[in-house]
Amino acid sequence: MLASRTLLSKQTLAVLSRQPACFVHHGDYGNWGNTNIAVVFSGCGWWDGTDVHEGVYTMYHLSRNGARFQMFAPNQQQMHVMDHMRKQPGSGENRNMMMEAARFSHGQGMTQMQDLSKLDVNSFDAVIFPGGHGVTKNLCSFVKDGKDFKLHNDVERVLKEFHRSRKPIGLASMAPMLACRVLPSIEVTMGYEKDENTRWGNWPNTNMVQAVKSMGARHNVREPYISFDKSLYASYVDEKNKVVSTPTFMWETEYHYHYIFDGIGNMVKHVMRMSTK
Amino acid sequence: MLASRTLLSKQTLAVLSRQPACFVHHGDYGNWGNTNIAVVFSGCGWWDGTDVHEGVYTMYHLSRNGARFQMFAPNQQQMHVMDHMRKQPGSGENRNMMMEAARFSHGQGMTQMQDLSKLDVNSFDAVIFPGGHGVTKNLCSFVKDGKDFKLHNDVERVLKEFHRSRKPIGLASMAPMLACRVLPSIEVTMGYEKDENTRWGNWPNTNMVQAVKSMGARHNVREPYISFDKSLYASYVDEKNKVVSTPTFMWETEYHYHYIFDGIGNMVKHVMRMSTK
Repeated sequence: MLASRTLLSKQTLAVLSRQPACFVHHGDYGNWGNTNIAVVFSGCGWWDGTDVHEGVYTMYHLSRNGARFQMFAPNQQQMHVMDHMRKQPGSGENRNMMMEAARFSHGQGMTQMQDLSKLDVNSFDAVIFPGGHGVTKNLCSFVKDGKDFKLHNDVERVLKEFHRSRKPIGLASMAPMLACRVLPSIEVTMGYEKDENTRWGNWPNTNMVQAVKSMGARHNVREPYISFDKSLYASYVDEKNKVVSTPTFMWETEYHYHYIFDGIGNMVKHVMRMSTK
Repeated sequence: MLASRTLLSKQTLAVLSRQPACFVHHGDYGNWGNTNIAVVFSGCGWWDGTDVHEGVYTMYHLSRNGARFQMFAPNQQQMHVMDHMRKQPGSGENRNMMMEAARFSHGQGMTQMQDLSKLDVNSFDAVIFPGGHGVTKNLCSFVKDGKDFKLHNDVERVLKEFHRSRKPIGLASMAPMLACRVLPSIEVTMGYEKDENTRWGNWPNTNMVQAVKSMGARHNVREPYISFDKSLYASYVDEKNKVVSTPTFMWETEYHYHYIFDGIGNMVKHVMRMSTK
């Protein structure tokens, strides 16, 4: 009996290990909605807002794992609008972060996009910030001010309140920049510290890693994906501060979107684990 | 030994059956990139372009299953720009479909957004149209002209060429409208035929199902998700015409994004199976 249990355990684990971001579907089997998580957006699109993949993956993993969630963005103009074909600012167009972020929402009930100023820490068990350059352009002033950047008032308030309340904070790609500004003792990952051409991709934003280190945070090198050799992982968990970060698109990849998906899944899993009431 | 094998098999299958859209990661194990699939976008956002979830899920499932893909959209103005907070047209703003669709692309190598007029059927094994109201506003004139609508020239060309070449066509949410216009003998699903309040969601776009039937296509009722009782499935496969359709967001849901994800995964799986050279 012991032998068969061991065999079962190994092979079941092998199946699970090939599917690292797919968890038991709590939502399908009854205990759906015990956890309520706030997700903070900064627009819609990698170069001037929230990356569509990171935002969608975050919502998917929350849905799959049976979390209730609500969506927030500042009701203010973006820094600018980027032409995503040419990767250059467009000519004089203005867009509102909340209205653009609403493109992630189907507007049904609680998942309507809301004004970030209305986010009340008492209504939520955790908060997640997906990545995208909106983080460094709209949610803080890094692109304008470099390492002396300031946070958007509501972003600063939200991060401080969740941390003070011992509620988990999930951060993807460059979002650790935000948390390190106001919580300088935390540990995070934003991937690699040098722009090395690793398997199928580069690391073009290592200046943000340097900024995080200069603020006093400890940076831990991680791959965006769950590695074969398990020596590096898809997210870094600061258990003491309940802060979980994952590199995602800090790594520029051509086709390997599923690694980014797994990284977000790993982050969401740890955020939900630490959200347990 | 037989007993332990049976136990293993049942429990392993139980794990797998809860994760219907997660396949073996071909991409990770060597045979990545044998299949090249074109994905056609119509903007960025449910109410005036390609739905962000359907577009991102399509790219994810192609990536996870080891397909190479390229992204296309018409290099033309959208019909209009929708305010996604109020679900009303915005005031006089113009946006270009290809430039907005580029928000799905990280612009690395082959995954840069391209002009749909350059899509050559000879370079691809299949084509997929994710859903969103851009399908009925930008890729055809349904919203303006009702059931007598016309297709965008390149959409008509692409659909006819892939069908004539016996290459699979994948269609999500309202995208079957496009194929039924030029291939009236096909069979598709767009979900339910009446606006019934099913588990956790409604069916507000059944007028499109009526349009498809009036064009001569056979419509098959399907749920957007893989049902518990397996009597209905997440996609309908027309093997003869190599057309695969899935209802996705024809079903309005508040939180259950993972069902939509599974539906797209099921569609991508069948498209890839029929793409085998």
